[in-house]
Amino acid sequence: MAYEFIHSRQVEFHETDLAGIVHFSNFFRYMEAAEHAFFRSLGLSIHQRYGGKTIGWPRIRAECTYYNPLKLEDLVETHLWVTEIGSRKISYGFVLRRVNVDPPVEAAKGSFTNICVAFDDRDGTMESVPIPDEILEKIEVAPGGKTKGVRT
Amino acid sequence: MAYEFIHSRQVEFHETDLAGIVHFSNFFRYMEAAEHAFFRSLGLSIHQRYGGKTIGWPRIRAECTYYNPLKLEDLVETHLWVTEIGSRKISYGFVLRRVNVDPPVEAAKGSFTNICVAFDDRDGTMESVPIPDEILEKIEVAPGGKTKGVRT
Amino acid sequence: MAYEFIHSRQVEFHETDLAGIVHFSNFFRYMEAAEHAFFRSLGLSIHQRYGGKTIGWPRIRAECTYYNPLKLEDLVETHLWVTEIGSRKISYGFVLRRVNVDPPVEAAKGSFTNICVAFDDRDGTMESVPIPDEILEKIEVAPGGKTKGVRT
Amino acid sequence: MAYEFIHSRQVEFHETDLAGIVHFSNFFRYMEAAEHAFFRSLGLSIHQRYGGKTIGWPRIRAECTYYNPLKLEDLVETHLWVTEIGSRKISYGFVLRRVNVDPPVEAAKGSFTNICVAFDDRDGTMESVPIPDEILEKIEVAPGGKTKGVRT
Repeated sequence: MAYEFIHSRQVEFHETDLAGIVHFSNFFRYMEAAEHAFFRSLGLSIHQRYGGKTIGWPRIRAECTYYNPLKLEDLVETHLWVTEIGSRKISYGFVLRRVNVDPPVEAAKGSFTNICVAFDDRDGTMESVPIPDEILEKIEVAPGGKTKGVRT
Repeated sequence: MAYEFIHSRQVEFHETDLAGIVHFSNFFRYMEAAEHAFFRSLGLSIHQRYGGKTIGWPRIRAECTYYNPLKLEDLVETHLWVTEIGSRKISYGFVLRRVNVDPPVEAAKGSFTNICVAFDDRDGTMESVPIPDEILEKIEVAPGGKTKGVRT
Repeated sequence: MAYEFIHSRQVEFHETDLAGIVHFSNFFRYMEAAEHAFFRSLGLSIHQRYGGKTIGWPRIRAECTYYNPLKLEDLVETHLWVTEIGSRKISYGFVLRRVNVDPPVEAAKGSFTNICVAFDDRDGTMESVPIPDEILEKIEVAPGGKTKGVRT
Repeated sequence: MAYEFIHSRQVEFHETDLAGIVHFSNFFRYMEAAEHAFFRSLGLSIHQRYGGKTIGWPRIRAECTYYNPLKLEDLVETHLWVTEIGSRKISYGFVLRRVNVDPPVEAAKGSFTNICVAFDDRDGTMESVPIPDEILEKIEVAPGGKTKGVRT
């Protein structure tokens, strides 16, 4: 049973904006990359067939609090925790750290809440479904979960 | 004195993902587009020189609650309200509606809190500064401001 | 029968990079936006069902030659011409102009070649197919077509 | 003296579009990531100060020919070669391979031509300049350079 993951990446040029820093919307893409890498680390995929249906995880909520900017070629570690699991939804907390400085600097905290959906094969519409057992049995809530990555 | 704005756009192909819907991170870009159009409607720019300094507006917080997906070529109206103004920061609430259906569907609510910064001309570093008077005198908090676009 | 289209847009903040200009990859998104608006102007969609199949248009080639940078809030006109039509593929030439200066400045020229494909409803794989008649009868090659938007 | 580089990455969710494949514009971002990693491998940065000026590399031309789609979580190797060096410009050829299948599949070929510019510290305008010696002495044209990554 897993409840946390650390994902590393380096800031790319196209992720910056004219203010010389990573565009705020890309922090959400960094958090998503950590989430998907967490799933892969468990032998899962974020968009996968279970029981004859394609299962996906649209967000119903996403938030980020920004503390320090990220710049070109910065090394970013995104720390993910599972903060809550329901029968049909899952929440994650995230802390993003700029680790190419000593000591590392906290760049941002964030969170996602996702619902589990099945896609209709004919028209692509989504329907909320219970999280498949194959996924539930691999993930648990982090100790002290609800407070991870949450703005205080 | 202005406190609200409606910005319209149409979903573009590159904004969708393999789930067939607009990627959740792009909702933040739609909200930003509304914010910048609001500034332009007041004769301002989001990245402009005042009193010998370039002034910008990095976010210190951004959040979005998603109700309904947006799809290719959907017409989206983003309604912006000014929800709070401090001496050095400003907050906005947003409601995104899909208006190519009758009746329109609420797709998401969100909010930004930005601080006002001056960029150092030499090295691009940012320093928190008071909002210039030329901007303050054009913007006011919407009636019932704090509750606009906020998750309840 | 249509063979050209002009699409207008304004540069958004997230499209810029730390060099203070629109990231070169976004010129391709501007050209795509013009292509899709051209299709809509003919009552077509770029991703649509014909004869029981979903038809799409993946690129087999895309190119752009850059003459002048585009900056935040620049007004951009993308001029599209149909430069070649085959039974299973179509080519477009593009000229992008920055029109918020007098006289307007040519920012870039580019081209796409797309093939027409049908998507398998079960697994999403693509297969080259003849362009549907409903599309062919609405589009023709521009006079002097092959030379439009092409680097000389 | 270096003339080639291989950069690896994994397709991220936000890089896909509703056709279920990597959006064509992102192939250009993959090529750019390889270019910048090549510079870093030589102790250089793509946006760096030399002789009191910030030096950058805007593209004057970019092209890509697409052979096979890339999908979510595909492993992509981008092979870069230096195909031409002038006093003020440099060209690269690229081959992108999908390597999570056996045998690997060629996904695309592409090329960039960049000019070397200095940015004006006051207003950010760019001026073509000779490539600094510190860069020239680390890079050479690949054997058979001009034919690398070029559509035949």
